[in-house]
Amino acid sequence: MAKEIRFNAFQMNAASHQSPGLWRHPRDQSHRYTDPDHWVALARLLEQGRFDGVFLADVLGVNDTYAGNADAALRHGVQVPLNDPLLVVPLMAQVTTHLGFGVTCALSYEHPYSFARRMSTLDHLTRGRVGWNIVTGYLESAARNLGIERRPHDDRYDQADEYLDVVYKLWEHSWEDDAVRRDRALGVYVDPAKVHPIGHQGEHYQVPGIHLCEPSPQRTPVLYQAGTSKRGKRFAARHAECVFVSGPSKTVIARYVRELRDAVADEGRDPSDLLIYAQALVITGRTDAEAAAKRADYEAYIDTEASLALLSGWTGVDFSRYPLDAPIEYLDTDAGRAALASFTQADPSRIWTVGEAARFIGLGGRGPVITGDAARVADELTAWVDETGIDGFNLTFALAHETLQDVVHHVVPELQQRGRYRQVYSPGTLRHKLFGLGPRLSADHVARRQQLGAARTQPAAPEPADAALS
Amino acid sequence: MAKEIRFNAFQMNAASHQSPGLWRHPRDQSHRYTDPDHWVALARLLEQGRFDGVFLADVLGVNDTYAGNADAALRHGVQVPLNDPLLVVPLMAQVTTHLGFGVTCALSYEHPYSFARRMSTLDHLTRGRVGWNIVTGYLESAARNLGIERRPHDDRYDQADEYLDVVYKLWEHSWEDDAVRRDRALGVYVDPAKVHPIGHQGEHYQVPGIHLCEPSPQRTPVLYQAGTSKRGKRFAARHAECVFVSGPSKTVIARYVRELRDAVADEGRDPSDLLIYAQALVITGRTDAEAAAKRADYEAYIDTEASLALLSGWTGVDFSRYPLDAPIEYLDTDAGRAALASFTQADPSRIWTVGEAARFIGLGGRGPVITGDAARVADELTAWVDETGIDGFNLTFALAHETLQDVVHHVVPELQQRGRYRQVYSPGTLRHKLFGLGPRLSADHVARRQQLGAARTQPAAPEPADAALS
Repeated sequence: MAKEIRFNAFQMNAASHQSPGLWRHPRDQSHRYTDPDHWVALARLLEQGRFDGVFLADVLGVNDTYAGNADAALRHGVQVPLNDPLLVVPLMAQVTTHLGFGVTCALSYEHPYSFARRMSTLDHLTRGRVGWNIVTGYLESAARNLGIERRPHDDRYDQADEYLDVVYKLWEHSWEDDAVRRDRALGVYVDPAKVHPIGHQGEHYQVPGIHLCEPSPQRTPVLYQAGTSKRGKRFAARHAECVFVSGPSKTVIARYVRELRDAVADEGRDPSDLLIYAQALVITGRTDAEAAAKRADYEAYIDTEASLALLSGWTGVDFSRYPLDAPIEYLDTDAGRAALASFTQADPSRIWTVGEAARFIGLGGRGPVITGDAARVADELTAWVDETGIDGFNLTFALAHETLQDVVHHVVPELQQRGRYRQVYSPGTLRHKLFGLGPRLSADHVARRQQLGAARTQPAAPEPADAALS
Repeated sequence: MAKEIRFNAFQMNAASHQSPGLWRHPRDQSHRYTDPDHWVALARLLEQGRFDGVFLADVLGVNDTYAGNADAALRHGVQVPLNDPLLVVPLMAQVTTHLGFGVTCALSYEHPYSFARRMSTLDHLTRGRVGWNIVTGYLESAARNLGIERRPHDDRYDQADEYLDVVYKLWEHSWEDDAVRRDRALGVYVDPAKVHPIGHQGEHYQVPGIHLCEPSPQRTPVLYQAGTSKRGKRFAARHAECVFVSGPSKTVIARYVRELRDAVADEGRDPSDLLIYAQALVITGRTDAEAAAKRADYEAYIDTEASLALLSGWTGVDFSRYPLDAPIEYLDTDAGRAALASFTQADPSRIWTVGEAARFIGLGGRGPVITGDAARVADELTAWVDETGIDGFNLTFALAHETLQDVVHHVVPELQQRGRYRQVYSPGTLRHKLFGLGPRLSADHVARRQQLGAARTQPAAPEPADAALS
């Protein structure tokens, strides 16, 4: 039986996400990102469309590479102004029952001890529907404002591994399943013998104490990652349950998928345990002609400067210094060449110009734009899944929420009719809905295999010297 | 005209707040703190009762002073398990229109750059109803787990002053009022010339960049503080718009109020600009007898060990080492004597024992317990306000949400009938509702008087050397 196709909605708590310039379209509602009702409406729509979840991107800085300042990003609202992603999750959870929430939180922004509490709280409030997109990198401007020295790429992954050690210990090992007694007659809320200080003494973090939260439905949130560098893939293979990838062609995506699943196998995990979502923009309507007209209408709002501000932020290359007809392969920095390789890889026989790349990412970001009536879009999505080995799509939008409304109203029923999309949600936590198992991480995940060491085998009543740590 | 009395609800995202032991009462619902519907119901109740707001306490650690470990705190659920307070605010805001939200966030837990974004986001999502309880101190156990060296008390206030400098600059001075143009025709979302890097270079923080958020309704959240130390009062006088105080008697509270208002005057502010709320527990019913019976019922659930775990955490004195009949004035540490002075000050002619203090704080914490039918409670609350100079009360509870339901159903109508409580909310932000002015901090507040310095007067297009900071 052909596998069901999964949808996530790719969002950001900002006025412009992956379609810079499109905020100028008269029907776009992205500027309502500060309005809670904007998020409530989105959540209801996505649950109606049986989406796996909404995936919230985040950065903690501005795209200020283009022309060496933030002017272009500000002028075009390119991911700035930008609000905190965590705080819209309780709103969306409260009006839904099944929808999941994948929230991007960079490791460097918050201490693991307080971060662990935030995520446990969200897992409680969503009744086990929260996921965490683990980001190790960050914008240079974020690091500067946080007083962090930006570390070399691979070092960041080492620190990330320790960060995960800490939060795993807090989430998975500090409280035993039956620690919370809540026995009114005995007067025992928690059995202290079943709550363990994690005793973490590492290179970057010292966290001796207990987790502050009682176990939430999933304990560890569903783990998402988006790394496609070599070290990033290894990290994803070790930790991630879901991975987001983006690229302009099936060829590029198929290679990522192969490499990711190989890396997962190398970690001793079942390669099919990893769910992989590819970024895509779907433009659809009642007919092919209607969809094509819609796309042409959207394309008229692509803004080259806005796109290049975004592309400059992603790549670290200041594209204000190049003419639009400059071929990308002649860009004179390693970073630029490497970051932009995916464009040229899409069609090795072709050379992309700066202007072509800007137009490409100007509508829907780094993924394909799939246009047509429901049948044509369903054909194309199915081909992507079947030919690349992905499990579903991380759907960007041209206009909020019109683009996703179109998907829900046209494409979802078509895929359901073909038996390639869920009719109803299965019960349980987000992890149940994604993997049919849960609510906890599978027993062979690195988080579950950890040991707290000495702290776990100590008697319930700690020795005086250790008492202060409990 | 006698002034109206104001109510806040004093809460914590935990199973037990200021009435340790009372979770054992069969009608208590505090254990539902992990359930979003628990908070939604509370918010609706408080808005029905025309409360100013809900005030969320927080710590980021456990009370582990008693017997040198966390066993007693865990066993009795004394403020542990404990979830994050920020994440329930969007839930409560979404089902209300007027209720305010005062959230406790300690300065030491998060960098001001990311914290500023969180609060701006909350101010947007609540449509201008968020307040921030500025806490400079923290539990020793929190500092330990965050890898923070705990600093001397007065040093913490110096760092706090700089922290506030940073967030004030971000909230008040980075974005001009008309920076957001959102002009679809011109293609200008933000006018870059009206967004200013704050250029903060201080002893503890370096934050060169711009605030990530567009101006929220109030910009700076309403500022709450609870410091009663000498340095704490100075800090409150400089920054706070509202202050919470707690003490067992009118004598103690009247002195705090005098000292606070004098300190505000010393800062050149109008002493009546500060709203002061005193902690209190109100136990009421249809008759005095019913209220008295309710109180007796509640008192049967006071738990001495739970109370002493809390009192030990507050004072830093390990009360497990003293017999219950030990007089507090003979405690052998300075910290213990100082922290417990408020009990003895309540009635200088009387010596409190450890057991008496435990029973006192075991029901409603450090404030008075005011018991009776609506008329008697209204008399007593009015006397407190008129004799001490406070503006209202920070109401703790014995049982969730029974205690506050009783207040809303009995006491609020009685006070309204006497013309001492609002009948309807005034329109506008939380600051409007509290002060009749707003939405921004008054022009003479220290936050408004700041200058960004050179960065503010630079030309719109920054010089290359500064470009990366914008």
